[in-house]
Amino acid sequence: MKLNCDVGESFAAWSMGCDEQIMPYLDMANIACGFHASDPDIMSRTVALAKAHRVSIGAHPGYADLQGFGRRSIAHTTAQITHLVLYQVGALQGICHLHQTRVDYIKPHGALYNDMMKDIQLYDAILKAAHILNLPLMILATQRSDYLQRAQHMNVELIHEGFADRRYDACGQLTPRSHTDAVIEDIEQFSLQASAIIGKQPFKSIDNKNIQLFADSLCLHGDNPSVQRYAQRLRQLIDDHQQ
Amino acid sequence: MKLNCDVGESFAAWSMGCDEQIMPYLDMANIACGFHASDPDIMSRTVALAKAHRVSIGAHPGYADLQGFGRRSIAHTTAQITHLVLYQVGALQGICHLHQTRVDYIKPHGALYNDMMKDIQLYDAILKAAHILNLPLMILATQRSDYLQRAQHMNVELIHEGFADRRYDACGQLTPRSHTDAVIEDIEQFSLQASAIIGKQPFKSIDNKNIQLFADSLCLHGDNPSVQRYAQRLRQLIDDHQQ
Amino acid sequence: MKLNCDVGESFAAWSMGCDEQIMPYLDMANIACGFHASDPDIMSRTVALAKAHRVSIGAHPGYADLQGFGRRSIAHTTAQITHLVLYQVGALQGICHLHQTRVDYIKPHGALYNDMMKDIQLYDAILKAAHILNLPLMILATQRSDYLQRAQHMNVELIHEGFADRRYDACGQLTPRSHTDAVIEDIEQFSLQASAIIGKQPFKSIDNKNIQLFADSLCLHGDNPSVQRYAQRLRQLIDDHQQ
Amino acid sequence: MKLNCDVGESFAAWSMGCDEQIMPYLDMANIACGFHASDPDIMSRTVALAKAHRVSIGAHPGYADLQGFGRRSIAHTTAQITHLVLYQVGALQGICHLHQTRVDYIKPHGALYNDMMKDIQLYDAILKAAHILNLPLMILATQRSDYLQRAQHMNVELIHEGFADRRYDACGQLTPRSHTDAVIEDIEQFSLQASAIIGKQPFKSIDNKNIQLFADSLCLHGDNPSVQRYAQRLRQLIDDHQQ
Repeated sequence: MKLNCDVGESFAAWSMGCDEQIMPYLDMANIACGFHASDPDIMSRTVALAKAHRVSIGAHPGYADLQGFGRRSIAHTTAQITHLVLYQVGALQGICHLHQTRVDYIKPHGALYNDMMKDIQLYDAILKAAHILNLPLMILATQRSDYLQRAQHMNVELIHEGFADRRYDACGQLTPRSHTDAVIEDIEQFSLQASAIIGKQPFKSIDNKNIQLFADSLCLHGDNPSVQRYAQRLRQLIDDHQQ
Repeated sequence: MKLNCDVGESFAAWSMGCDEQIMPYLDMANIACGFHASDPDIMSRTVALAKAHRVSIGAHPGYADLQGFGRRSIAHTTAQITHLVLYQVGALQGICHLHQTRVDYIKPHGALYNDMMKDIQLYDAILKAAHILNLPLMILATQRSDYLQRAQHMNVELIHEGFADRRYDACGQLTPRSHTDAVIEDIEQFSLQASAIIGKQPFKSIDNKNIQLFADSLCLHGDNPSVQRYAQRLRQLIDDHQQ
Repeated sequence: MKLNCDVGESFAAWSMGCDEQIMPYLDMANIACGFHASDPDIMSRTVALAKAHRVSIGAHPGYADLQGFGRRSIAHTTAQITHLVLYQVGALQGICHLHQTRVDYIKPHGALYNDMMKDIQLYDAILKAAHILNLPLMILATQRSDYLQRAQHMNVELIHEGFADRRYDACGQLTPRSHTDAVIEDIEQFSLQASAIIGKQPFKSIDNKNIQLFADSLCLHGDNPSVQRYAQRLRQLIDDHQQ
Repeated sequence: MKLNCDVGESFAAWSMGCDEQIMPYLDMANIACGFHASDPDIMSRTVALAKAHRVSIGAHPGYADLQGFGRRSIAHTTAQITHLVLYQVGALQGICHLHQTRVDYIKPHGALYNDMMKDIQLYDAILKAAHILNLPLMILATQRSDYLQRAQHMNVELIHEGFADRRYDACGQLTPRSHTDAVIEDIEQFSLQASAIIGKQPFKSIDNKNIQLFADSLCLHGDNPSVQRYAQRLRQLIDDHQQ
């Protein structure tokens, strides 16, 4: 089980997040690529930070929407999606060369990530980019056979990620943030769900059913004000499990 | 002697240039990378077009300035310049993977190109990017020892380019466009200077001195309204010389 | 009956449309405000051109989406829509002061226009901006009572526009462009529908019903390659009717 | 003597400054207009905040350079400068209408401000915009007769501003930030210079000459980490002087 987090989300003179505090706890850093956040200088700084902490580097491409921080769906053809991903991952690869390191995987950001899980054609377009670049793709942990088969068909390795701070429904989908109880704020409940996901044990869905996730990675939300506390807890739970 | 030209300078819904008409005449295509012109879709289309005509692909990075088409100097630290170039070349490399082709060289655009020839620290910053990516760098044909030595020191191959449609001064510098006679519009005079450069023969500077360029490539200006005629002529002169 | 057209849709170094050819035929010029097209310099040039031809100036605000030319829906809160419109109309008013002229009305662009006709809350948000600026709002000619009542309630004058080059359904809605017969390309059929709309006479919907529009203005599509011919025809038909 | 400060410098999801803490101390708020910082939503929020504290609203236009926060000079023609200013001030006026308030003056931002004080043609271009909009212009306190005469000729009221946290040279020019002692960090020295400027008394230049400023407004730098302390002190000194 690996701990991943979105980082490198500052832009120009504007800071966001506390990458330096979080990086020591991470296994995988999803680094913004300049379309929804970041710029070449911040990307370089973030790659250097990840490398210094021996954290695996993921490209985190998003829709070209600084104003909406990549959280708004914007219609694209599938060809445009493939170009969008190739451009951004390639750009991060360019920066990685400077630090003699490399991009290890792709995780789409925000609305692009959500749209990928809803629209299988958009997923295909992203798989195509991952295939071309020979990189694994991180998606929301799923057992949907269509999602698994297409990745296999395209010869793309999937990294399944789970969330300890979000309620799932009985089908293993995330409850939308608009729902009252979508987010788990209590750290003990958060830990309970994290432990279940780490141990591949069943846990309760929002509608009180038993569900089980098969996840390779847990996502830490960097925009949580007490993110460092959650990071420490997740790191502890993962490390304890691995001993 | 190779013929190069800036292409792929459309943006979003806006067209520029006549890439399809010019591409058949070229040896080298300098492809805009989205900062001063172009976008991921246009880059993909342009790479495909270059590949179809077996034209060598160059990354053509510029300052992040759509409004000014990359023709305005914008102050950067040298580290920022290196990041800017790595980001854009990497992005084009990402797109090239889609078409199973690759970036062969780097030619900076507009103000970035001019600033590189004026400011050796900026030149160093670009050399650094070229070195990291192991790509040749196209510059204005020069015999300035500092420019040649630094490239050698960084182990970067230089491609020297000359202009058949611009007057040089006695030192081999381009006469600024603000000067009345900076541009050679007459096609016979244009051909004369082209032939001299191709044959590595002396020709007349704007102040009527004999000068000689050691150029590997001739640049065709795509924004000339009768560009196709100039392209044909240059192609003819180069091909004739090579027979 | 007034003839309106979207103009001023160039951007930076990129040209679009043929404003100088079309302007002489127009009554109303919908001028892009820099979010989906144009920039302060092009806005100034376009305002000057409209003024020289005594054409009424409309602000043509759109979503902030140069890449998509404002043709892609992007989610906004209603407050954001009001700000977006006020910002862009205000900016054009600033430019109009330079030419001692003024903005006479507001016509939303592209996806913002379509969304306004589909989502009454978004329509309300635009009405609010029009009310605050005390400007008429151009919408798709409609007799939907909710659309009419809210404008009346907000004390905003509506300008109803019709299209001679687009098929309507029996309810008076435009047939989506994705439909095979959505666009009327034959100039005689185009003239027939134009004449009907000008004369407030019934004409055939796409499903062969008689429909009638109550329109104050006809829209000319500037992106049509033979736009000048259509412009002349519409001008002629309108002028003939008014004699 | 009025206290002014740059505010509304957040952008999209990125926060900057502490406008809510500072606004109560200010007389004049220089509000960013979306080119170097801010967006329509943040402009609306900032205008509302200024109005709630009865703070006079200034438009704070800058170069179109989010990446450089408007701190990098970018070449423009004088016509472009006039358009740039009119666009941004007009946009803020549009937003002000929503809050039933208005723009009271113009203060250029960053590199545009510095370039205005160095290049009288650029100053003329900004004066032209101020004249057209009938708004006062805030500049660096000066007694240069050319600057004063042109404003008078254009019938534009000038607001002269001084800095309590920056060293001046004997000619009344600001010492560039690159100079070691350019910034006054000690709050007692800061207060001393502030008191002198408020009382129109002489104070020491960086080269130990006596100089005197005739300023109408003191500028508070919002990017100072202990800005609230400086704000309180300046407010106190101004209020004490006025009793």
